[in-house]
Amino acid sequence: MAKVVALDTQRRAKAQALEALTALVEDDLKAVNRTIVERMHSPVALIPQLAGHIVAAGGKRLRPVLTLAAARLCGYGGDRHIKLATTVEFIHTATLLHDDVVDDSALRRGQSSANAIWGNQSSVLVGDFLFSRAFELMVEDGSLKVLQILSRASSVIAEGEVHQLITTNDTETSEAQYLQVIQAKTAELFAAAARIGAVVAGRPDVEEEALRVYGLNLGIAFQLIDDVLDYSARQSELGKTVGDDFREGKITLPVILAYRRGTDDERAFWTRTLANLDQAEGDLARAMELMTSHNSLADTVARARHYGAIARDALGVFPDGAVKAALLDVIDFCIERAY
Amino acid sequence: MAKVVALDTQRRAKAQALEALTALVEDDLKAVNRTIVERMHSPVALIPQLAGHIVAAGGKRLRPVLTLAAARLCGYGGDRHIKLATTVEFIHTATLLHDDVVDDSALRRGQSSANAIWGNQSSVLVGDFLFSRAFELMVEDGSLKVLQILSRASSVIAEGEVHQLITTNDTETSEAQYLQVIQAKTAELFAAAARIGAVVAGRPDVEEEALRVYGLNLGIAFQLIDDVLDYSARQSELGKTVGDDFREGKITLPVILAYRRGTDDERAFWTRTLANLDQAEGDLARAMELMTSHNSLADTVARARHYGAIARDALGVFPDGAVKAALLDVIDFCIERAY
Repeated sequence: MAKVVALDTQRRAKAQALEALTALVEDDLKAVNRTIVERMHSPVALIPQLAGHIVAAGGKRLRPVLTLAAARLCGYGGDRHIKLATTVEFIHTATLLHDDVVDDSALRRGQSSANAIWGNQSSVLVGDFLFSRAFELMVEDGSLKVLQILSRASSVIAEGEVHQLITTNDTETSEAQYLQVIQAKTAELFAAAARIGAVVAGRPDVEEEALRVYGLNLGIAFQLIDDVLDYSARQSELGKTVGDDFREGKITLPVILAYRRGTDDERAFWTRTLANLDQAEGDLARAMELMTSHNSLADTVARARHYGAIARDALGVFPDGAVKAALLDVIDFCIERAY
Repeated sequence: MAKVVALDTQRRAKAQALEALTALVEDDLKAVNRTIVERMHSPVALIPQLAGHIVAAGGKRLRPVLTLAAARLCGYGGDRHIKLATTVEFIHTATLLHDDVVDDSALRRGQSSANAIWGNQSSVLVGDFLFSRAFELMVEDGSLKVLQILSRASSVIAEGEVHQLITTNDTETSEAQYLQVIQAKTAELFAAAARIGAVVAGRPDVEEEALRVYGLNLGIAFQLIDDVLDYSARQSELGKTVGDDFREGKITLPVILAYRRGTDDERAFWTRTLANLDQAEGDLARAMELMTSHNSLADTVARARHYGAIARDALGVFPDGAVKAALLDVIDFCIERAY
C-alpha cells in the first residue's frame, strides 16, 4: 500500500514536470493558442470546425512548448517564436489528421477522431490545409533557415510514415529499422521544434545543435514510451484504447523484442496475429503475457532511458536555471508516464 | 462527312497547340523531368514507385510548361525556373494523389490510379511527401516571394478542395459558388505557375500580374471544359471514364445550368441522383439528355470562352513572338478539346 502511494506521488511529481515547463512559458503559449485560432480561420466553415476539434482536443502542446521554452532558454526577447510554435503545432496536427485516416482510428486522445466524425475525405483535405497554412506562417516569418529546417522535417516525417506503413505486419522488422521509423515520424519534429528556439535567438551553432539533439532524443524516448503504453494498463487512464497497435499489426519495439526472444511457437503466434491479422478473443491478453515473460515492455522503457540520458547531456552546454531544469524534468515525464 | 473531316483537322490543329508550346521549351522540360525523377527519390522505395507511377502516367505537364514558357516570354536566361516548375508539378501531383483518395477514383488518365494499386494509405502519405519535397525545392531556390506565392496557392487549393467536398451533393449550389471552388482548386495553381515565370525574370509588376491573370483565367476555362468532358462522348477518347462526377454527385456547371433551367420533375431527378445518390441504369443517359435539351454543355463551353478571352487579353502587354503565340493557342486548345 505504501508502495502504491509512493508511486502515485512520484507520478504526480512527474506529471507536474510538463505543467511546470508550460507554466514558465504560459503567456507565450496563450499567444500561440490565439494564433492557432486566428490562423486556422477560413470562410469554408468546415475547416475551423474540424481543425478546432483536434487542436482543442486536450493535446499537451508539447511540441510548441519546446519551441517556446528553447527560445526562452536562449534568452530570446522577440515574438517570432509565437508564429513558429504555431507552425510546429499545425504541422503536427496535419500529421495527426492524416495518421488517423491511415490507421482508420476511431479515437484520438479519448475523444472521437475527426475522421470518425467528418469522414476521411475531410480529414485528408483539412490536413492539407493546415500543412499549407503552416508554410504560409513560416514564409511570413521570413527566415530561410527556419523554412529549411521545417520543410526538411516535413519530408522526413512523410518518409517515416511511408516507411512505417511498409513495415506494418512485417514481424521480421529489426530494432534498427523501427528506430529509423520513429526517429523520422516523431523525433524529427521534436528536434526541429527545439532547434528553432536557438535559431530565432541567433545563438551559435553549438547551442542550436544541443537543442536539436535534446529534441531528437526526447522524441525517440517519447515514442518508445507511447509504444509501451499501447500494451499497458496505464493506457486507459490516458484516454486511449489499449491494443490499437496490436489490432493494426504495427511492429513496435515491445513486439520486436518479444518476437526475437520468443520460441518458435510464440513466433507463430506473432505471425498469425500481426502479419496475417488473424486475431481471436484472448490474443491481446496473450501478447501482453508474452511481453511480460520476455521483459519486453520494461526493456523498451530501458531503451527510452538511454535516449533520455542523451537528451539530458545535450543540455549541458546551457547554464543552470528554471527553464533548463524544467526541460530536464520533461525527459523524466516522457519516460515515467509509462508507470 | 466533309464536316467530320474539317472538325478532325481543327482538333488536330488545336492539339498541336500544346505540343507547339511544349516544343518551344523542350530542353527545359527535359531538365524538369530529370529533376522530378531526382527529387522524388527516397530510400523508402515505395515513394519513387508510387510517385513515379502518377508522374509518368502521361500527364501533359501543362502547369510546369506554363512556368517554363512564362519565364521564356519574360526573356529569362537562368535556370531557377527548372526547379520551380518541378515544384509546381509536385504540388499538382500531391493534389492528384489526395483527390483520388477523396473521390475514391479507380482510374487516372486512363490507367489504374495509385490508390487503386497501392491503397489509400500510401497515396495520402506519398502525397504528403511530394508536398513537403515541393517546399524543400522552393526553399533551396531561396526566393521568399516565390515561397509566398506558392504557399498561398497551396492553402487556397486545399480550401477549395474542402469547399468542393461540402458542395458535393448540394444541387442548390450557385454558379458563383462553383466558380469560387474551381478558381481555388484549379485556377490558383495555373496562376501561380505562370506568374513565377515573371518573378524569376525580375520583370515589373504589370507583367507579373498579366501572367497571373492569364494563368487564372486559363485555369478556369480548363476546369470548365474538364467538367463538360465528364458528360461528353469525347471523354472516353481522352482515356477517362464518362460520368464520374455524376456518380459521385459532384455539382459542376453543366449540372447547375440544367437544374436551374429544369422543370420540377427534372429537378426531382437531379435531387434523387445527385443529392441522394439514388442512381439506376439509364440515369446517366437521362442526365446527358437533359443537358443537351437545356444546352447546358454548350453554354458551359461559352462560359469557358469568356474566361479564355480574358486570358488572351491579359497577354496584350507582351510583344508578339513565338512563345506568346503558343501561349494564346493553348487557350484554344484548352477549350476546343471539348469537341
